[in-house]
Amino acid sequence: MWISLEHKKIPYQYIEVDPYKKPQSLLEINPRGLVPAIRHGPTWSTYESTVIMEYLEDLHTGPALLPPDPRLRATCRLWTDHINRHIVPAFYRLLQAQETSDQVTYATDLRTEIGKLVDAADSSGPFFLGRDFGFVDVQMAPWVIRLKKVLGPYRGWPEPEEGSRWKMWVEAIESEASVRSTTSDDGLYLDSYERYAENRPGTSQVANAVNEGRGLP
Amino acid sequence: MWISLEHKKIPYQYIEVDPYKKPQSLLEINPRGLVPAIRHGPTWSTYESTVIMEYLEDLHTGPALLPPDPRLRATCRLWTDHINRHIVPAFYRLLQAQETSDQVTYATDLRTEIGKLVDAADSSGPFFLGRDFGFVDVQMAPWVIRLKKVLGPYRGWPEPEEGSRWKMWVEAIESEASVRSTTSDDGLYLDSYERYAENRPGTSQVANAVNEGRGLP
Repeated sequence: MWISLEHKKIPYQYIEVDPYKKPQSLLEINPRGLVPAIRHGPTWSTYESTVIMEYLEDLHTGPALLPPDPRLRATCRLWTDHINRHIVPAFYRLLQAQETSDQVTYATDLRTEIGKLVDAADSSGPFFLGRDFGFVDVQMAPWVIRLKKVLGPYRGWPEPEEGSRWKMWVEAIESEASVRSTTSDDGLYLDSYERYAENRPGTSQVANAVNEGRGLP
Repeated sequence: MWISLEHKKIPYQYIEVDPYKKPQSLLEINPRGLVPAIRHGPTWSTYESTVIMEYLEDLHTGPALLPPDPRLRATCRLWTDHINRHIVPAFYRLLQAQETSDQVTYATDLRTEIGKLVDAADSSGPFFLGRDFGFVDVQMAPWVIRLKKVLGPYRGWPEPEEGSRWKMWVEAIESEASVRSTTSDDGLYLDSYERYAENRPGTSQVANAVNEGRGLP
């Protein structure tokens, strides 16, 4: 949703939160203390990545990320759900896996789930629905960046195959201005995810859920 | 979404599926074989309850279930997510629990999650956003019915407390025409959920996920 704000050129104030010392202002918005969360105006706020994305669409400010056609909108929502429920958990399972055999299994799972998404994408690309950067691209972009900057160094995740549809998509996402302006330095990704890669106890609610095999919070 | 079709008076053909012998026509729509799924026109289809609900909204046929205000729409989506990710799993955990001590714990969890939803509802009611039957009511209605018809007999789930906001909501949902016309006979609920209440092996993907403590499929 940070990318969405940038893409729509909606002015915002970015507030970074120490996940190990959550400020009261975040807990007032989301009692579970999870990000992303937004405040709009003095009293209104909401949370959950997809809820915020739909809210920003509903404001009709800047370029729309969902197309007008109801069927294409449904396709975008279905694959956004796939990212959140299958790709993101598979990413964390692989990152937190300590045994080599688990890493092999979870890398295969992650590749399978990404493969389904790529198969559902417009074949000429470069983006999910074709020429324009949209809803599914915004949702997938942070994970494309983390595959390279986190799973690459920690789990040897490979670069996309030369000439593949996946490589075309990754390159288009990485070149997008709203993605570039919200991407941090490599070192920050390595530091932020080190606890996950070593699977240290008490890393986060997400890490605990993955360790216990539960759905993400 | 069945209730949504009824409420919007969108003509449809209802196809019942034997969950233990899934037809090819369903697997062609959703490779995971889960319902609900819809086909619209000769070749187009989609699945996932919330994706279908949003699609039916986007058709702009019949009464809208989401209000026009972007903030209220976000509120509806946030609490729909709460139903799907917290209330529904809590419902199944309680239904599948065989030990009395687990049943007590899970009944408390379910009551807590329902309590959060009721606290977020418009205080004068009777529906979630106030006077009109809407998006959150449609999503919650099947579970309101199942609390009475499934958890009542199998787990002694109590009737709503006299004079409570919850009772007002339950009665409004139960009286709604689109809910009444999609509610089956009591016996069918008892039969369909007997396997869950006895936690028989191989009951469903949902039952397996609950037994393994995973997120629902």
